[in-house]
Amino acid sequence: MLRVPYPDLYAALHRATLHLGLRDDRAALCARLFAETTRDGVYTHGLARFPRFAAMVANGCIDIAAQPTRVSGAAALERWDGHRGPGNLNAHAAMQRAIELARLHGLGGVALANTNHWMRGGSYGWLAADAGLFALCWTNTLPNLPAWGASTPTVGNNPLVIAVPRANGEHIVLDMAISQFSYGAISAAAERGQQLPVPGGYDDAGHLTTDPAAIEASQRALPIGYWKGSGLSLVLDLLAAMLSGGQATHQLSADPARESGLSQIFLAIDPSSFATRPDLDRIATAIVDSLHDAPPIDPNHPARYPGEQTLHLRAENLRLGVPVDPTLWRNLLALTF
Amino acid sequence: MLRVPYPDLYAALHRATLHLGLRDDRAALCARLFAETTRDGVYTHGLARFPRFAAMVANGCIDIAAQPTRVSGAAALERWDGHRGPGNLNAHAAMQRAIELARLHGLGGVALANTNHWMRGGSYGWLAADAGLFALCWTNTLPNLPAWGASTPTVGNNPLVIAVPRANGEHIVLDMAISQFSYGAISAAAERGQQLPVPGGYDDAGHLTTDPAAIEASQRALPIGYWKGSGLSLVLDLLAAMLSGGQATHQLSADPARESGLSQIFLAIDPSSFATRPDLDRIATAIVDSLHDAPPIDPNHPARYPGEQTLHLRAENLRLGVPVDPTLWRNLLALTF
Repeated sequence: MLRVPYPDLYAALHRATLHLGLRDDRAALCARLFAETTRDGVYTHGLARFPRFAAMVANGCIDIAAQPTRVSGAAALERWDGHRGPGNLNAHAAMQRAIELARLHGLGGVALANTNHWMRGGSYGWLAADAGLFALCWTNTLPNLPAWGASTPTVGNNPLVIAVPRANGEHIVLDMAISQFSYGAISAAAERGQQLPVPGGYDDAGHLTTDPAAIEASQRALPIGYWKGSGLSLVLDLLAAMLSGGQATHQLSADPARESGLSQIFLAIDPSSFATRPDLDRIATAIVDSLHDAPPIDPNHPARYPGEQTLHLRAENLRLGVPVDPTLWRNLLALTF
Repeated sequence: MLRVPYPDLYAALHRATLHLGLRDDRAALCARLFAETTRDGVYTHGLARFPRFAAMVANGCIDIAAQPTRVSGAAALERWDGHRGPGNLNAHAAMQRAIELARLHGLGGVALANTNHWMRGGSYGWLAADAGLFALCWTNTLPNLPAWGASTPTVGNNPLVIAVPRANGEHIVLDMAISQFSYGAISAAAERGQQLPVPGGYDDAGHLTTDPAAIEASQRALPIGYWKGSGLSLVLDLLAAMLSGGQATHQLSADPARESGLSQIFLAIDPSSFATRPDLDRIATAIVDSLHDAPPIDPNHPARYPGEQTLHLRAENLRLGVPVDPTLWRNLLALTF
């Protein structure tokens, strides 16, 4: 792994987004969202995703020029069409609009149809939290998990983000897929010859297993909580598709290189009409303190809140350089994706 | 198990709520919420919960006369105080208010502090769905789950409800605690000498186990998805306590008979300004059909959506009588709880 200064990573990504045909502010924002994701330690969804992003521009799934438009709405709730533009730009615009609506109405919601993979969902949670707001957002995905009771992938892993702002910037941001492990994590463990830390799926004989190769063979990865995650995934898809009027998981291509036309929900909550930042912070700090004070199983690994490592990794990567895969980095500099 | 006609169950519960000191409409609604929960097959949270409800009236945790009041708010988002009144009446009022707000603003939210156990969370999802609205609601609870990495109960199982309306009344209602199994289910399996169907916690040696007695001994039940459910539980608590200004899980008594002063969130979504019922139904039906069409592992148990059994159980229990525990029923009739 190579470490490159953050400004260099951003500049190279910016050159790449311009090269793909994005213009002006949109090229800069798209590059920044990719660069910040890697900077914050979410390595699977930053630079590592850029080649697929470029491939989907090339194969026509992503329309680089398309901008999201408001279709309809009333007061706090709006329906938008992403016109299959870049997923991270669409999601950023949708959360920004939900924030505006929440500032007006206390709550703000945007249901976005016809969009593309939003890359790191946590980005939009951080966006709202940096603005001082709470947020919930989620996306549907291609079918990549068997519903509980089904033998083939039927539901999506539908990442869910919930963000809690703190005035000091140490936001609490849950960013989780509904699968216990991503297929990427399962493949990586299989390549390393390692077992998963907890059961991640079923083998072909129908037994729970921590063996990643057996799960790759059966294609029966687990939703979190078995039947519970299966149900959660389904209702997230229902809300996303019904409210946006867009596609549901069952309508999406099972080919990850053609996973396009997603539906997403963005909800922002602004309690500033009745709660002061210090009052909110006091409650959050007490909850975080109680978590940190819990007797740990391993004294070297106390309980942590979601996103707790983000600011630490961000600081480290800004100081030491952002870790990048040398081949990806070389290709990025050469504008060959 | 005895089966009693639904009207008899309701009448007996109504007599009991009047006996506890509830008045007029409130006594009727409280009784109806308990009775409907048992009628719908959620046996753990209906009549079976009534003795604890009565005990908490007796021990002062529940103020039978207290009614929820609006503390503050702006437009679509309000903060309410439950004044430690009956939890199901408070939750019903809060969701009813969220529905009203959503009809005005597209979205409606109520953050409720100082309330009590809402009994069956799904009741408030069904309330919104019967009104044609989508809803999300959740409650915090006493600390009953170790956070991921902690050895003692630190977070709540914080039930989460997500409701999707359908015009034919076949609503899709997820109603799930963040624990893999409730302590009630773990105890019941231990009493029957049965193993859990999937790992439900750790034993004292720190190994995942399906042995309910070992989990009772260690008190280390699992959140769904291990670290994922732990994080989800924490953020649900953060939103509930911060937005309502009420208590967080770490402030609640670990004694279930004194679990009072909870914080809850009720969000309703009304897309009627831009989506017709037939258009919404078409999308929902296609998603449900795709689930039902998935190849099942066991042909006798196809994949089901959350709440799919509710209307079936409701019809069966209305036809055959509602199953009740004979001792509970006798005590209810004798007004001895």
